[in-house]
Amino acid sequence: MAEVQTFGHAQTNGHVKSTAYGENVANGVIKATKIATAPGAESKEDVQLVLKTFRLMVGDLCQQFNMGHPGSAMGMAALGVALWKYTMRYAPHTPNWFNRDRFVLSNGHACLFQYLNLYFSGYKSMTWEQLLSYHSERPDSLCPGHPEIEHDGVELTTGPLGQGIANAVGLAIATKHLAATYNKPGYDVVSNHTWCIIGDACLQEGVGCEAISYAGHLQLNNLTVLYDNNQISCDGSVDLTNTENINSKVRACGWEVIDVMDGVNDVEGIVAAMSKARDPNRTKPLFVNIRSIIGVGSAVAGQAQSHGAPLGVDNVATMKRAYGFDENEKFVVPEQVRKFYSDIPARGEQLVQEWHDLVAKYKQEYPELGEEFQGRVEGRLPSDWTKHIPSSFPAQDTPTRKSNNLVMKDILEQIKTFMVGTADLTPSVNLTYKDYEVFNPPTLKPTSGKVGSYAGRYIHYGIREHVMAAIANGLAAFNPQTIIPITSTFFMFYLYAAPAVRMGALQHLQVIHVATHDSIGAGEDGPTHQPVELAALYRAMPNMHYIRPADSEEVAGAWEAAVNYKTGPTMISVSRHALPQLGITKRSGVSKGAYVIKEEEKADVTLISVGAELHFAVKLAEDLAKADPPVKARVVSFPSFVLFKEQSKEYQRSVLRRHEGIPAVAIEPYVSLGWERFADAGLHMSSYGHSLPGKYIYNYFGFSIENMALKIRSFVSDFKSGVVGRGEYVELLQKPAGHS
Amino acid sequence: MAEVQTFGHAQTNGHVKSTAYGENVANGVIKATKIATAPGAESKEDVQLVLKTFRLMVGDLCQQFNMGHPGSAMGMAALGVALWKYTMRYAPHTPNWFNRDRFVLSNGHACLFQYLNLYFSGYKSMTWEQLLSYHSERPDSLCPGHPEIEHDGVELTTGPLGQGIANAVGLAIATKHLAATYNKPGYDVVSNHTWCIIGDACLQEGVGCEAISYAGHLQLNNLTVLYDNNQISCDGSVDLTNTENINSKVRACGWEVIDVMDGVNDVEGIVAAMSKARDPNRTKPLFVNIRSIIGVGSAVAGQAQSHGAPLGVDNVATMKRAYGFDENEKFVVPEQVRKFYSDIPARGEQLVQEWHDLVAKYKQEYPELGEEFQGRVEGRLPSDWTKHIPSSFPAQDTPTRKSNNLVMKDILEQIKTFMVGTADLTPSVNLTYKDYEVFNPPTLKPTSGKVGSYAGRYIHYGIREHVMAAIANGLAAFNPQTIIPITSTFFMFYLYAAPAVRMGALQHLQVIHVATHDSIGAGEDGPTHQPVELAALYRAMPNMHYIRPADSEEVAGAWEAAVNYKTGPTMISVSRHALPQLGITKRSGVSKGAYVIKEEEKADVTLISVGAELHFAVKLAEDLAKADPPVKARVVSFPSFVLFKEQSKEYQRSVLRRHEGIPAVAIEPYVSLGWERFADAGLHMSSYGHSLPGKYIYNYFGFSIENMALKIRSFVSDFKSGVVGRGEYVELLQKPAGHS
Repeated sequence: MAEVQTFGHAQTNGHVKSTAYGENVANGVIKATKIATAPGAESKEDVQLVLKTFRLMVGDLCQQFNMGHPGSAMGMAALGVALWKYTMRYAPHTPNWFNRDRFVLSNGHACLFQYLNLYFSGYKSMTWEQLLSYHSERPDSLCPGHPEIEHDGVELTTGPLGQGIANAVGLAIATKHLAATYNKPGYDVVSNHTWCIIGDACLQEGVGCEAISYAGHLQLNNLTVLYDNNQISCDGSVDLTNTENINSKVRACGWEVIDVMDGVNDVEGIVAAMSKARDPNRTKPLFVNIRSIIGVGSAVAGQAQSHGAPLGVDNVATMKRAYGFDENEKFVVPEQVRKFYSDIPARGEQLVQEWHDLVAKYKQEYPELGEEFQGRVEGRLPSDWTKHIPSSFPAQDTPTRKSNNLVMKDILEQIKTFMVGTADLTPSVNLTYKDYEVFNPPTLKPTSGKVGSYAGRYIHYGIREHVMAAIANGLAAFNPQTIIPITSTFFMFYLYAAPAVRMGALQHLQVIHVATHDSIGAGEDGPTHQPVELAALYRAMPNMHYIRPADSEEVAGAWEAAVNYKTGPTMISVSRHALPQLGITKRSGVSKGAYVIKEEEKADVTLISVGAELHFAVKLAEDLAKADPPVKARVVSFPSFVLFKEQSKEYQRSVLRRHEGIPAVAIEPYVSLGWERFADAGLHMSSYGHSLPGKYIYNYFGFSIENMALKIRSFVSDFKSGVVGRGEYVELLQKPAGHS
Repeated sequence: MAEVQTFGHAQTNGHVKSTAYGENVANGVIKATKIATAPGAESKEDVQLVLKTFRLMVGDLCQQFNMGHPGSAMGMAALGVALWKYTMRYAPHTPNWFNRDRFVLSNGHACLFQYLNLYFSGYKSMTWEQLLSYHSERPDSLCPGHPEIEHDGVELTTGPLGQGIANAVGLAIATKHLAATYNKPGYDVVSNHTWCIIGDACLQEGVGCEAISYAGHLQLNNLTVLYDNNQISCDGSVDLTNTENINSKVRACGWEVIDVMDGVNDVEGIVAAMSKARDPNRTKPLFVNIRSIIGVGSAVAGQAQSHGAPLGVDNVATMKRAYGFDENEKFVVPEQVRKFYSDIPARGEQLVQEWHDLVAKYKQEYPELGEEFQGRVEGRLPSDWTKHIPSSFPAQDTPTRKSNNLVMKDILEQIKTFMVGTADLTPSVNLTYKDYEVFNPPTLKPTSGKVGSYAGRYIHYGIREHVMAAIANGLAAFNPQTIIPITSTFFMFYLYAAPAVRMGALQHLQVIHVATHDSIGAGEDGPTHQPVELAALYRAMPNMHYIRPADSEEVAGAWEAAVNYKTGPTMISVSRHALPQLGITKRSGVSKGAYVIKEEEKADVTLISVGAELHFAVKLAEDLAKADPPVKARVVSFPSFVLFKEQSKEYQRSVLRRHEGIPAVAIEPYVSLGWERFADAGLHMSSYGHSLPGKYIYNYFGFSIENMALKIRSFVSDFKSGVVGRGEYVELLQKPAGHS
């Protein structure tokens, strides 16, 4: 690929006909509007003044509270001008315009770069006062240490490295999918481009590598990654730890690669490279390798010291002198610079208006599809969507992973809002539906399996759990509830995905994660595949609704709760093995987190259980009633800690009745952590699992009905006799002798 | 690179002089022993019979209990013969021989492949009866669903995909490092090779991508990855989800790549490719891309159906007929096949004897180094290692991340057992020491930073947390306590590393993880970098010792506990910000998990706190004593849940005194999950954090001394008046209004 070192006309490589920068060459419909004046309309001096102003603002902002990350933001100044002034289609005064270009700063620590660009391009909420709140004590600052999704002009919260590029892949998939579903000849109602800046770190992180690999496979030609190649990380030069040929590697993954050799000052060169992005004939995502210099212009240019600490007063003063600024003044924005950016809001509003006009005509031409499209834009589900869920289920023993399909197959088939994905476990997770279409490039003819299209809603993510969850965040962040992404894998492998699941929760994104093989009962795959501690993480994670349903009826309740929960992710945790249909469970109980399934007025004990093991509690209550002396046990189904905690104290007491002095015993073959809140004793795991077929493993760890009954009777007796100290949670099982 | 399709002499590419397969061309010293007869010494018919027998055994073993993963194991039969018969240096009767070649099955679900090879090559523990225990109800089976480290011939537990190749990188680093440290001309006392088989999945998983990238950077020419390229995963053909050019990608990462086109039957071709592995002139790791056919020989050959389910009785019977076996017989191993493998144990013992002779001479020639080497082989630390830890520390406020350095810098400098690594946070984690040398190829001249060597003990892992932890597992698994690896990054990014941290815990590997920025007090980086729920995972993880020390004195205790804990990982969780040296903490208290730092005979309340916030509890106790009416508070420092749970009930009661009716309040700005076991109420987070400088964030979430004192007084009053129900944990803080 030719290096774009000079300026004056766009690199063509045979594709791009127009030489006007920023002109829309990809989508015929709104090409009349140039999104920007070409560089060159402004003088080179103007551009250089903008770059200097930008870098000095970064320096001053970090100096103000003697904190922050100046280096990358300074190094990327030219990239900012190329994007916000000359390339992106967006509307600062209508920041949530549906068809806006999306921008993701994957190297989120360089957030000042984004804040300054938002300020200069005219986002109303990013006032001067707000801009100066970076690292201040203001809790309402719009300039947190990493960009956050709540704020105008920020598509997703970034910071944990490598995830931003994966989110961007999700945004680009959303566009591809919506375009394939709704666009008609002459009506590209969805046509935006996704731009993502990454640093060296995003190329080292595994999730970033997964994203590169998968985006190349998908041929996402509506995605451009801009690599801020400054070759510096915290520990020093990148070649201390990474010496791969990144261009070759990215090309091998199916990307088109362009080099920009002077990313520091050559705005025109960057724009020229970017102008290839919208080429409709390109069948690959675009990777622009932009050489830059961290902390450029300062005394620590090119050095790791400029990464995560302010430059120092003297250093900034020296820069100001060199740039012809007054070293005694801070936060100086010359009028020329303001003028440079002044046309952007109006330009944006024009884009918005043209899009609205287009959509209006589209609705006239295609009334039914137009109505559906409008519903997607507004994030509406059919109000009667639950009608597709069966009111009852077959009585035979069923794995709850199969119950998922009983509950959701009609909904998944009929409501386009849902995009189902799996990390290569289609046969295990049972989330396919009638005539499902795979999301894949239509030109791809796989050796086996279905030929897909971009209109497909079933996503084969490959064996890439982490990027699956991060892409799902991007799908959900495209626009609220336009797409509700579903991911799926073994529960244990949601540990691989956990950093992205967390980011979804932190951002209040509605993503539904379906986790199968969620108990030691999964059996012979052994301890690597048997969760014992992972639920503790998801039960602790703010905004996450972790739900373990016990049978098909509770699976229905779990899905209702998940679809209704619009402000965060849900994880539905299901069994590999067949479970009895208990007949006494209630889908309406799930949304309360816990509920009584068997009441006993004068109870000796409350048995609490959940998910794949709830049926143990039911059987135990029967057996204990017949013991000599009989033990009267009530039974509580407890599918979700978080949903139960949200209930009133009155409800909680009515379920647990511990305030009446009735002891509670929790039964769950996970470690006990967290159960101490709801119970006095428990039957739990205290070690990893073991490779044994499902029917043997429960017995091996002491979860036979006989043994559990014995332990419970003994505990109830101890409790009555006062042997159990206040607040001393009793673990009723020991790990097997010899088990480590 | 030439494709190795023919057989008869080793591919040379200019390097390999000998044409005898398996002859040691890399290390001069023990080259006299051919490790194997060349293929060809046996007839082609013999080899084919071995392959058929192997595949039918796989079929029968999966059929026996109608479970298991047959396909990959069958497809790799030839690869097994090439490795165990013709290539690897190992000793079945001395399975833990220090200098043995290491073998890792990264696609661990294909475990039958390994078990059969262990059986055929003569591992004593792998009896016929044991071999037939795959997926049986035997809890003492040596044939679990994935290979497990406890068993002879298995180096590491694998199964979670992508991690095995990362473990293998750790094993290869261990060899490189020990060789560079101890080998002398004529005395290659450490010279083993590491072999790792991967499937398609390991190349898709992020951690596998990180491993490929980093191993190439390190130029690990003692590592060979054998890619079982069958292009099938659970969902169907791999090209449904991955279409990258893997050879180009791996080459771009700095590997040498060889293709083998017939991996199903061409044992000779595979051996020819592998013979390049020990070429001492090669400066790259070797990647052998071996085309194979999943489930080969069966009716579902080349299909996903053969991956994770038995082939079916009829299918196996058909195979037997086609192979000339009696379809009515099961588990047939012809005498020729046994004879084929019969020379291996004796050959292995000869290798072991030669190595012992070599080491004996080495000790004579280099008595001091020889003694040190012997200590490393035996995993000994100097008995007086703790003498290097200062008996007291400077009184000024110190971030506990800096206390790490005060405690460990002399030990790290002087005791070679420790290898310290960081995921690009050297300036943050403070684990460098005087004249530390970087582990890097000596030929690498980085743009900035130190030129390293393979004798270096400081590892720049790059921004690759997951592979860091997985490599550390490999370092620890090389041989018990020969290397004690230390990893380091921000606490929050141990969520990226969590799958590998878990695998270290599951395998009882001594790895020490140093997690800094472990509280909301880390400040302005914001919620993406502020842990609130992550401790719940590590507190729940079996075998993991998660420790949050409060000041330098407790940091000393945490390191003592970590170094003394030989059978699992420890995570030492430290603060970014400066903390007071409390003067009342005790390093000896840390190993007990919790201990009283301020006693009060007639106490109204016990304040429990930990780590970065323990000083709050101390201050609160002082202030509450002066309140009107005064509240008498005792204070417990609680650095580790797991260590406290291991104490006697008497000790636990003496620390908590809840059985005396004294209520306990926990103070930790994490979510409450788990604290319910030890306390009646708590001051905790119930949301993610916020981007605010450290000194403001505690107040923002209600952790000002004034507010906490108010809440505690109110709770003590409620508790006394009986308002608090039995077992009802009281959350004393609400999240700030408007905070989501």
